[in-house]
Amino acid sequence: MAKGPAVVLASGGLDSCVAAAWASRRWRPAMLHVNYGQRTERKELECFERQAAHFKAEQRLVVEAPHLGRIGGSSLTDRRMAVPKDEKPGEIPSTYVPFRNATLLAIATSWAEVIGAEAIVIGAVEADAPGYPDCRAAFFEAAERMIELGTRPETHIRVEAPLVAMTKAEVVRLGMDLGAPLELTWSCYQGEAAPCGRCASCQRRAEAFREAGVRDPLEGD
Amino acid sequence: MAKGPAVVLASGGLDSCVAAAWASRRWRPAMLHVNYGQRTERKELECFERQAAHFKAEQRLVVEAPHLGRIGGSSLTDRRMAVPKDEKPGEIPSTYVPFRNATLLAIATSWAEVIGAEAIVIGAVEADAPGYPDCRAAFFEAAERMIELGTRPETHIRVEAPLVAMTKAEVVRLGMDLGAPLELTWSCYQGEAAPCGRCASCQRRAEAFREAGVRDPLEGD
Repeated sequence: MAKGPAVVLASGGLDSCVAAAWASRRWRPAMLHVNYGQRTERKELECFERQAAHFKAEQRLVVEAPHLGRIGGSSLTDRRMAVPKDEKPGEIPSTYVPFRNATLLAIATSWAEVIGAEAIVIGAVEADAPGYPDCRAAFFEAAERMIELGTRPETHIRVEAPLVAMTKAEVVRLGMDLGAPLELTWSCYQGEAAPCGRCASCQRRAEAFREAGVRDPLEGD
Repeated sequence: MAKGPAVVLASGGLDSCVAAAWASRRWRPAMLHVNYGQRTERKELECFERQAAHFKAEQRLVVEAPHLGRIGGSSLTDRRMAVPKDEKPGEIPSTYVPFRNATLLAIATSWAEVIGAEAIVIGAVEADAPGYPDCRAAFFEAAERMIELGTRPETHIRVEAPLVAMTKAEVVRLGMDLGAPLELTWSCYQGEAAPCGRCASCQRRAEAFREAGVRDPLEGD
């Protein structure tokens, strides 16, 4: 039987690339990238396009959600705020973009309903987004219920967050097992020419590859 | 005690104007308008600005959500589709913008969390949006739960849809009782110079004023 489509939210980062590899075993991926004014958007979009080509996505959509940058409240979109080098345990870091994942899911659902997709796949990793309230399994369950109620009666869209309970090292390992093109991903919050190696996202990525016992293909010799 | 802020979603239309009047009795309204490429946006934005001035909103925000127009699937945003003159009972009309209210609530929540608002007020009227699944009380309850789970632990935002169970005539009467500036509202799906008088939205508005026994201030002599 021919596989149906699923909308895959793809930032250009490592986690969503692994989620896309996971999704492409089950569905035909319809790849969606949302530009909300993050600092490294140019590089992330380039990675998204290369990943979409890798996964042979027949449908791809790049949309703008400029309100997240306009509303502010996050060092990821507000250039007047510094990106923190360290994160304190138990504290939500300033890179948190308030309720961002709800916007991503709302956009994905509108598209999913129009193209008849069966699922939305999001590569959220709770352990990798320390304290971000919209990166937890309970949040995605609530989102699925809201989607069921807020779409046409004949529309049924599942919300799949296959990595949500994994460690970042497990995500790297799953990516290797699935043959995900990790060389086409970008994690750094700050740099576009080369990863800065210092921001919290670079540190988490390096640690994950170290723990997984794998060499990061983005690292030079 | 000084009133706290609430985010009021204001399209420039009649329902959200009455909802804003209702909200301004309880909170300091922070007025939010989302441009998603609807046909009569220029006129709606003008009405929004005049309403915000009327309600003395200290905070106002106009943001773009271009993805709804890009994704399509609605005659309200897709100029290649005709706006229907009549709606068939039991059928979702082509003016339905898939999952639009979820995007509106996601944007409102991001702003509400940053400015510390206690509530989001949306002027949805179920009877006025025949069959739109994202205009029902159960949908707003699910949204409130998703918001509770997806925001910071100390953030508590209520979703208020005070008109959801009213008839459109009851909305007109409530607006008159609250002194809402109905002359600053726009309902027509098609025209901007003058209401077309023929589209489903114009028809519903005319019927509501007739039933309420009130003259529509937008009507000429």
